[in-house]
Amino acid sequence: MEVQIAVAKINKYATSESGDTLEVVERPSGGLSVVLADGQTSGRGAKAVSQMVVRKVIGLLAEGVRDGAAARAASDALYTDKQGKVISTLNIASVDLYSGTIVLTRNNPSPMYICHGDQIERRDEESIPLGISRNVRPLITEISIEPRLIIVIYTDGLTHAGKRRGQPMDVGLTLRSILDGQDLSPQVLADSLLAQAVSLDDNRPADDISVLVLKVAARTGDNVRRMTVRLPIDGSFRA
Amino acid sequence: MEVQIAVAKINKYATSESGDTLEVVERPSGGLSVVLADGQTSGRGAKAVSQMVVRKVIGLLAEGVRDGAAARAASDALYTDKQGKVISTLNIASVDLYSGTIVLTRNNPSPMYICHGDQIERRDEESIPLGISRNVRPLITEISIEPRLIIVIYTDGLTHAGKRRGQPMDVGLTLRSILDGQDLSPQVLADSLLAQAVSLDDNRPADDISVLVLKVAARTGDNVRRMTVRLPIDGSFRA
Repeated sequence: MEVQIAVAKINKYATSESGDTLEVVERPSGGLSVVLADGQTSGRGAKAVSQMVVRKVIGLLAEGVRDGAAARAASDALYTDKQGKVISTLNIASVDLYSGTIVLTRNNPSPMYICHGDQIERRDEESIPLGISRNVRPLITEISIEPRLIIVIYTDGLTHAGKRRGQPMDVGLTLRSILDGQDLSPQVLADSLLAQAVSLDDNRPADDISVLVLKVAARTGDNVRRMTVRLPIDGSFRA
Repeated sequence: MEVQIAVAKINKYATSESGDTLEVVERPSGGLSVVLADGQTSGRGAKAVSQMVVRKVIGLLAEGVRDGAAARAASDALYTDKQGKVISTLNIASVDLYSGTIVLTRNNPSPMYICHGDQIERRDEESIPLGISRNVRPLITEISIEPRLIIVIYTDGLTHAGKRRGQPMDVGLTLRSILDGQDLSPQVLADSLLAQAVSLDDNRPADDISVLVLKVAARTGDNVRRMTVRLPIDGSFRA
């Protein structure tokens, strides 16, 4: 088998800094974790908060701390620092080769989707962001690594899309129409969801949007780990 | 313009753990850094060393510490911990949107290649790994972000390929024959270099191999940042 992960990420229109931070870390016992945080408000302040949360979580995961404990620690650190005045959402998607499972940790009111073939399941149990109070509890979902599994995680910018003109994005419906029996790459899935949101906002996203898609595919041949990053730059540097 | 980064990475034959660690971090002043370390020997011990080095460097870069200072700090930390008995190579490739440059930091005897169109330049100034002594100095190369720039960085597994049967890999020659006037994606470039090395080792790599290719391309349309990760797994989990 092969686990394929794709991310598509865009800034709020006319802002140079995204409040969303996403990073990937290797797990010391095998596998990797993708950590996504969305700091309250937008611009520099939000960026600092989401970066702090992601750094904290990644540092702990790299030391072998379990995902739930890392989320609780980041929440306590944020609460201690900001006294509950600044919050941040957090999603962790871990490919844990030690247990042979995908471990999904969520402190984010935005739901996530778990798809097995044609079956699309919306997971929207109540989940509160980090830093809101002491003892914030993450929701943990553990799933066997099996072919045809697709997981879709996103920041609330995706669900805010279209609200400005009263035509809010229906993520489940869009996902169903994109999947529609096709075997698409996770990058195509993430790109399609993001493109739909951006189009509902007339190409001027009202918020930072990050979409993360994880797919388990039948093995494609070699033992090579691959990663690609694409960073658009506008050529008008600050210096 | 768009900066595209690709990585292809394979373990030494019959080992489950790579001594190479590669991670990506966002720079607080804009852009991102790719950090690649290769710990001495192979297996678990090497992994621990390269992970320690990468974690140290990434933590400092995330705080805004400059690349050269982060490399020196990681070297001092490794030297203090291991008294010069364990060393690690380090390469940092940073897309620095503050200065509008690519900053390349090298503590690795393996050379790197900088290509501008048809011009392929081998950079092989003497460079020593981290942890060998106090006051290890990194080599820093700074290049403007311009279309058609291609940078190729790798761990020594690539140059060790084929040595076992007396037919060592010539990276420059292979790179020239792959490029050959074609406009290839960095993933195709990285995959092709790695495939050539693996083939010279009869599909049983004698060492961990990591290849990192950075390319500056003319802009391809949207403002979306993208990332994909592909992680082959063999289904025989440890638990």
